[in-house]
Amino acid sequence: MRMYDIIQKKRDGKELSTEEINFFINGYSKGEIPDYQASALLMAIYLKKMNKRETVDLTNAMVNSGETVDLSLIEGIKVDKHSTGGVGDKVTLALGPMVAACGLPFAKMSGRGLGHTGGTLDKLESIKGLRTEFSREEFISTVNKVKLCICSQTANITPADKKLYALRDVTATVDNISLIASSVMSKKIAAGSNAIVLDVKVGSGAFMKELDDAFLLAEEMVGIGNSVGRETVAIISNMDEPLGYAVGNSIEVIEAINTLQGNGPEDFVELCLTLGSMLLVLGKKAENMNYGREMLVQVIDNGSAYNKLLEFVEAQGGDVNYIRNTELLPKASNKFEILSDCDGYIKSIDAEEIGKCALALGAGRETKESNIDLAAGIILNKKVDDKVNKGDVLAYLLYNDPDKAKGIDTKLKNAIKIGDKNKEKKKLIYGIVDSDGVKRM
Amino acid sequence: MRMYDIIQKKRDGKELSTEEINFFINGYSKGEIPDYQASALLMAIYLKKMNKRETVDLTNAMVNSGETVDLSLIEGIKVDKHSTGGVGDKVTLALGPMVAACGLPFAKMSGRGLGHTGGTLDKLESIKGLRTEFSREEFISTVNKVKLCICSQTANITPADKKLYALRDVTATVDNISLIASSVMSKKIAAGSNAIVLDVKVGSGAFMKELDDAFLLAEEMVGIGNSVGRETVAIISNMDEPLGYAVGNSIEVIEAINTLQGNGPEDFVELCLTLGSMLLVLGKKAENMNYGREMLVQVIDNGSAYNKLLEFVEAQGGDVNYIRNTELLPKASNKFEILSDCDGYIKSIDAEEIGKCALALGAGRETKESNIDLAAGIILNKKVDDKVNKGDVLAYLLYNDPDKAKGIDTKLKNAIKIGDKNKEKKKLIYGIVDSDGVKRM
Repeated sequence: MRMYDIIQKKRDGKELSTEEINFFINGYSKGEIPDYQASALLMAIYLKKMNKRETVDLTNAMVNSGETVDLSLIEGIKVDKHSTGGVGDKVTLALGPMVAACGLPFAKMSGRGLGHTGGTLDKLESIKGLRTEFSREEFISTVNKVKLCICSQTANITPADKKLYALRDVTATVDNISLIASSVMSKKIAAGSNAIVLDVKVGSGAFMKELDDAFLLAEEMVGIGNSVGRETVAIISNMDEPLGYAVGNSIEVIEAINTLQGNGPEDFVELCLTLGSMLLVLGKKAENMNYGREMLVQVIDNGSAYNKLLEFVEAQGGDVNYIRNTELLPKASNKFEILSDCDGYIKSIDAEEIGKCALALGAGRETKESNIDLAAGIILNKKVDDKVNKGDVLAYLLYNDPDKAKGIDTKLKNAIKIGDKNKEKKKLIYGIVDSDGVKRM
Repeated sequence: MRMYDIIQKKRDGKELSTEEINFFINGYSKGEIPDYQASALLMAIYLKKMNKRETVDLTNAMVNSGETVDLSLIEGIKVDKHSTGGVGDKVTLALGPMVAACGLPFAKMSGRGLGHTGGTLDKLESIKGLRTEFSREEFISTVNKVKLCICSQTANITPADKKLYALRDVTATVDNISLIASSVMSKKIAAGSNAIVLDVKVGSGAFMKELDDAFLLAEEMVGIGNSVGRETVAIISNMDEPLGYAVGNSIEVIEAINTLQGNGPEDFVELCLTLGSMLLVLGKKAENMNYGREMLVQVIDNGSAYNKLLEFVEAQGGDVNYIRNTELLPKASNKFEILSDCDGYIKSIDAEEIGKCALALGAGRETKESNIDLAAGIILNKKVDDKVNKGDVLAYLLYNDPDKAKGIDTKLKNAIKIGDKNKEKKKLIYGIVDSDGVKRM
């Protein structure tokens, strides 16, 4: 078998065999196939597409390129949740304690933020002492004890995906549905959970800008998961405006704590209830989504979700005083108000622009090596469809380094459009994709 | 400017600007742009195509990546001829002396053979003592004196093309019209002639298998040449069967000598007269092609073309006795006859297969490092449309190494199809492309 022939075949729009895909992924991860042949194939795949069978094979080949995590020592059905990335997406911070409080083990390996979207591990590190590096044994025993553990990767999973992703990143071959789906799903499959809930974001702040593309990506990922025996469902959710009000690190932790205390933003709470009820159904803790939703509302109302957060923080070495008194969390030395120039309604809040403003203030990483300012960020004071009067606060800029705040006020103002009332009310969830197919909402 | 953005732009089917193409070629030839980004762009160009403006810019950028040859010290209009490569293509060996005998300077830089097509320099080295390495000063003074010199490249021309071609060769991005045309034309433009005649081969033994593709390639190359002020014309010629009867090195030299003595194969003579008359018109030695043709017939008839060959061989240090007595040229120790099994007519002779058989016998190079057996090859005894009887010799295998001849008899026989008389007579020249457009014949 020759890599040249594989490139030529895909270039000509033909279907690659399982053996050919395995040959490529094995050879590439071993360094036997050079980057320049891999990138030519990636561009051919990008432009000529892969069918579902090829995408499943690519996923499996990447899973097999590294270690896989064995979660069998955790009791019960293990469920995992994955978001394709958004602005203000602090779902894991609230959802983890909620489902764990319902008795469902939530064994989550998370990542760090890059670019305009944040990462769960960075947010958690706002809490003094909290560590996210665990051995596999610690990870499993913590989940068995607390039902909840959030840590960085404990194993060398999907090295082929890491290498390929780095190459895609510099050769303009990232945003292809087969390549995205196989990358995400290979990591989820290798991470060892039995069932997977996907939150596919769509809109200005998401990877997928178009609704149809988001549905296609969801279908592709759900298909891969189910074809390898991992029950997988996806929702398509709105990322035209940021999720909740807070976009940053410590401020998102505060918003998650508020949510677990029953004071969460409407859209954020709704998303947590939807994803959580799916997790409970897949984990066989609830018969259907309505029942799951009731369970989740109850664990918030009775304080057990909040208590689970405290238990989780303590188990991971964090100082629970930082949760009980959020004034202790990293706090920016400057707070700048962005005021409305006119009366009207919020027509749109460009999530990507808000994410970029927060990044510029220091809340995110431009490159993998950048340091994060855990206190920096943006707190919105209005959301889409809200009424505003001239002089009302639209948002707050939080920052420590005044140099980084230069010009951000104007950029932020431009990202928030005010005008007549929108004719249609914004939608949070566009649909669900599972093994039965697509349900648009 | 970022290479990433250039890849993305072409990936999305957009037109690259002159600056973007220059950035790519400059950066790639300097080693500032890595192979993996170049190959991703090549695949995007392959699949999304380049328009004529982009192709001209790519050609110019490659010309500017290295030295250009200044032929201004050669008196008169300098014309060049290029063939896209065929089997039995010994045109330069006969055409050079023919046009030089008409007073047109023919300053030709040639290459070596690779794969199933031969190279002029290898063929010339059958002649004892003949050298093809010349300094630029020697090259120019020889052309001024003899009107003819054939040598290897005297300058570091189009290094970007060399580097890109090597990358295309391993990433399945060779056979794209813009990439082929810019590669050929950049070399021709850098080689410094004022006018260019292109022989675009089409058929089983050629790079282009389909007539329409050959016309497109010819149009593209003629467009590039004329757009940079080099008058360029192309013919499309048949490469379904080998040109002439001889396929090898010393045996092709003999066929060229015979042609200059008035005993050339019909198709080969016709092609030389067509290309030669175009060269004479471009070089302003003939008013039109008919007149040019008459001049060429005359220099063969009166012996001046043959004398020009002797003069050329002597000027390049070769032993003219090898021309006067071709028995001195390298001669194979074995000659094997391939006989016809039946009566009928030759329906087809697969040029690519014949080329591969000659290659296997030792006449060509499998890789750049292979040694050539100058005596090995194939001499056809019949051509397409010829009548054959059972027992007639179809072809001769010439070889020194019996190991290399194993199985070639069967392969060769299979390459020659015998049957009923073809309904249509074969065509040698399918058309002409010049600045006025395409004339199909």
